[in-house]
Amino acid sequence: MLNPSDFIQEAVEEIRNTVGDEKAIIALSGGVDSSVASVLAGKAIGDNLTAVFVDHGLLREGEAEYVKKTFSERLNFRYIDASDEFLGELEGVTDPEEKRKIIGRVFIEVFERVAEEIGARYLVQGTIAPDWIESEGKIKSHHNVALPHGLVLEIVEPIRELYKDEVREIGLELGLPREMIQRQPFPGPGLAVRIVGEITREKIGICRRANAIVEEEVLESGLHESLWQYFAVLTDTMVTGVKGDVRDFGYLVVIRMVESLDAMTASVPELPWELVKRISKRITSEIPEVTHVALSVSDKPPSTIEFA
Amino acid sequence: MLNPSDFIQEAVEEIRNTVGDEKAIIALSGGVDSSVASVLAGKAIGDNLTAVFVDHGLLREGEAEYVKKTFSERLNFRYIDASDEFLGELEGVTDPEEKRKIIGRVFIEVFERVAEEIGARYLVQGTIAPDWIESEGKIKSHHNVALPHGLVLEIVEPIRELYKDEVREIGLELGLPREMIQRQPFPGPGLAVRIVGEITREKIGICRRANAIVEEEVLESGLHESLWQYFAVLTDTMVTGVKGDVRDFGYLVVIRMVESLDAMTASVPELPWELVKRISKRITSEIPEVTHVALSVSDKPPSTIEFA
Repeated sequence: MLNPSDFIQEAVEEIRNTVGDEKAIIALSGGVDSSVASVLAGKAIGDNLTAVFVDHGLLREGEAEYVKKTFSERLNFRYIDASDEFLGELEGVTDPEEKRKIIGRVFIEVFERVAEEIGARYLVQGTIAPDWIESEGKIKSHHNVALPHGLVLEIVEPIRELYKDEVREIGLELGLPREMIQRQPFPGPGLAVRIVGEITREKIGICRRANAIVEEEVLESGLHESLWQYFAVLTDTMVTGVKGDVRDFGYLVVIRMVESLDAMTASVPELPWELVKRISKRITSEIPEVTHVALSVSDKPPSTIEFA
Repeated sequence: MLNPSDFIQEAVEEIRNTVGDEKAIIALSGGVDSSVASVLAGKAIGDNLTAVFVDHGLLREGEAEYVKKTFSERLNFRYIDASDEFLGELEGVTDPEEKRKIIGRVFIEVFERVAEEIGARYLVQGTIAPDWIESEGKIKSHHNVALPHGLVLEIVEPIRELYKDEVREIGLELGLPREMIQRQPFPGPGLAVRIVGEITREKIGICRRANAIVEEEVLESGLHESLWQYFAVLTDTMVTGVKGDVRDFGYLVVIRMVESLDAMTASVPELPWELVKRISKRITSEIPEVTHVALSVSDKPPSTIEFA
């Protein structure tokens, strides 16, 4: 059994011992993992930690504002709009592993620049157990990659041994807002993993709106309490539809809502049918580029939680 | 209100008047529409009608055998394996309208050859009302196209004014097996409309197996009585999965089950969740190329019943 205050004390000491009086940066994404890691590291080394929020252009609706509001008074916080850089590098790339790798690489490059500027020696990351267990199984690469040429940043992973429910406990103990702690996990590569095929600004817009509709409806229904994740995937499948009396041709969006304890396995529960239909109707009526909506029904395994 | 025996009498007379002592062929697909049209025309002109069953290589599991068994004693029946020709022409084609057009064209070409051989003058077709109403709305093209160069066949459409439920009534009155009459509609272009993107033999095999699983489970559940159509679509979206402990990458299959009265509108009802999960699990476990299954939830409109 994890004792939150013991864990925090030990983690803080370990970070202090490791980092000493040097500077560190952390990639603060606004998810539970990196938020907890940021606050732990901030507690350990104060303003010697720079919490960098990188806007890769693949954020959810309102994401940047939310993170700014939550952390700008709590941490030495920096917002960096690197969306042009990310989207430029992703142009024409369709392979999901390739996309993850590019995003991971640019991420680290952006850090390197900030790190050089502030004279940092350490990169703190919010890696948790399922991330590296999956990586070692060669299921997905994560962006806790080694640094490229240039400045060498040592990686510090204070919550590497924890599972999600434990991270949430620590977050509450650290005084993070409950609303933030209970937020569904959001992948580091952002909407990139929810856009199948090439990523374009148009597709990001569609995917962002579809995800906002799913989140709104799930929050409204109260189901966010029992669901692990709930989101929309913009596939690269085009489906014939009919709008008014004329033929239409648009995207297939898949909505996915899963229950899970630790992301190692996940299952799709029976969902209120009116909710599913309402989400579907809102998506096709509010997003003209979408003609068809389907509800994912595959568990993990054999599927993964995110599509890519 | 349609009076079945009056309709049959009038239709038979009209076919006789039109065709006279000439020869006719019909594209018998095994669906309710073409079956009813075939039997009507056979009733009208006997062996002067050749019912041609064209295997375009895009049939459901057991389809060819079923049609042979049902019609070879009832009609002047011919089975033609034209799958190489169809699949050759479809190679590399991804646009759904283009696929429909190619299939329609090759269809007519095959007929033309048989028609020349038997000296036919007429092409009987099982077109029903929603087909041409939709075509005129430019939603989908159907393969009741005009003939290409060469032999001119006149098109006869004896059930052109009927809706599906009326076609079924006529079929029963004509003594067709109830099981056949109640079969769900199957599109003329076959599995082509259920394979998004390029059609290959591998993808046909996957799509055929997924459709067989959906049909088996729906029949087993008894839901075929209330559903208009129930099928599986092989999309061109690839999804990350996990088999054993290793990363897997495979197709997204969408299952679609709709209620409808006449195909002009359709809706997805709430379905027994155990059935949906069972279908999903069978598809991912019995078809290794598939990693993810989703249930279509969009009504028509804004979607169409088939995906293409």
